[in-house]
Amino acid sequence: MENDKYLKTVIIDKLIGNEVKEFEDVTIDEVRLNLYLNGQKTISMMCIPKDQDAHAIGFLMSENVISSMKDIEKIHISEDGLKVYVDAKINKDSIANLYKEKTLTSGCGGGITGNIDGNIKVAFNQTSFLIKANTISSEIKIFYKESELYNLTGCVHKAMIYLLDGQTITAEDIGRHNAIDKAIGKCKIQGLDTTKSLLFVSGRLSSEMVIKSVMHKIPIIISRTAPTYLGVQIAHKHGITLIGFARGKRMNIYTHQGRIDV
Amino acid sequence: MENDKYLKTVIIDKLIGNEVKEFEDVTIDEVRLNLYLNGQKTISMMCIPKDQDAHAIGFLMSENVISSMKDIEKIHISEDGLKVYVDAKINKDSIANLYKEKTLTSGCGGGITGNIDGNIKVAFNQTSFLIKANTISSEIKIFYKESELYNLTGCVHKAMIYLLDGQTITAEDIGRHNAIDKAIGKCKIQGLDTTKSLLFVSGRLSSEMVIKSVMHKIPIIISRTAPTYLGVQIAHKHGITLIGFARGKRMNIYTHQGRIDV
Repeated sequence: MENDKYLKTVIIDKLIGNEVKEFEDVTIDEVRLNLYLNGQKTISMMCIPKDQDAHAIGFLMSENVISSMKDIEKIHISEDGLKVYVDAKINKDSIANLYKEKTLTSGCGGGITGNIDGNIKVAFNQTSFLIKANTISSEIKIFYKESELYNLTGCVHKAMIYLLDGQTITAEDIGRHNAIDKAIGKCKIQGLDTTKSLLFVSGRLSSEMVIKSVMHKIPIIISRTAPTYLGVQIAHKHGITLIGFARGKRMNIYTHQGRIDV
Repeated sequence: MENDKYLKTVIIDKLIGNEVKEFEDVTIDEVRLNLYLNGQKTISMMCIPKDQDAHAIGFLMSENVISSMKDIEKIHISEDGLKVYVDAKINKDSIANLYKEKTLTSGCGGGITGNIDGNIKVAFNQTSFLIKANTISSEIKIFYKESELYNLTGCVHKAMIYLLDGQTITAEDIGRHNAIDKAIGKCKIQGLDTTKSLLFVSGRLSSEMVIKSVMHKIPIIISRTAPTYLGVQIAHKHGITLIGFARGKRMNIYTHQGRIDV
């Protein structure tokens, strides 16, 4: 089908109760798309490399940089699909506004977590310990039950750091990355060592979520939902155990399964 | 309870089948938190104004701007909770990296959509037409059924523009904002007029999603999930009909219900 090229197959360990099966899972591609405006590299976005021309046009119009289709002289996508070149008449004020202030909206990563290019300067995570799969299953149940703001508004993400002594540190926010930063910040304030801990997050595991785990040397990251292909690659490369679709007694272990005692 | 101060009550029209009831709904607060590092305004983040100190510390450590708690000399939150001041020994390279390149990660808005300060220069949306609530209910069902990449990977958002002649334009991406930009871009490329249309999105309606509806003069925005309080405020102020929790024959109409024929 037409969408095949955006899908990447990974071999995972699928855990159902105490049974482990090797399984082929399908993940979505996540790439950095660079937008060049009148020859100048203007911005980059982590996305699926599909409909790049529509993406660029919609974005530039959302930002009022371009007022109408008539302002566009030429649009061109590079062969590898990772660059889109737009030549257009632009609103100078709006493009200044784009750079006026760096704002992280809900779900938005920035800085290193948004600017990786395969050069994160953190050593491969070699921390070794064993955690029972059963513990993960029971903790994720509590994780979802005890989300007060979510239960009231349906509009927040949650992060939890589970220390090996059973202590948990939680935080909620409208943004996935904010929730993680807040939970980690709380640990730091309390002087807790997170190098032997598990990070539970309520949202999808796209690249910037996994990078937070890498940066803080948290060896295991767990979600009830899906990772992107880039998320899996980063976890693989940096020694992070990545678990997705953790629901009830089931979970998919995408990388470094040696830390999980089934 | 402790979390009460992050909740904002709004009066909405709750639609169940053909019955409309006025109802008090609870939404989550969404604010711009400004981070000052050694006296310099460094970045701002859209978030819940809670645990601001942990948020700042976690963020700065995620970005490797601060290496350890020892590097922090002072941390202070303004009385209104909207500013956090950190005095610390910082890694100069990492802070340069933070500004090196503007990257929008999945779920991230930027530019105008991230830089509103109550001064969006778009006229109040006065476009008037009536759409049957039944049409919305049946369209949202199709919207979710026909999401191929989501069904395969569980890791994408979707946006759909529904034109009044029944035509639909859809796009999928790992980021909510990307999916909207792509769907709008497709309409622009095809020369379709979106001023009489409805925007369906799969994710939550935080501020930057609603701003895209404002910028493109799309009078109605609809989601199966929740809006933030700021999202509701922006819709109210700019003449956008905001509908949340659209599921089956139910939906919550938060603003400008005059366009909905029940």
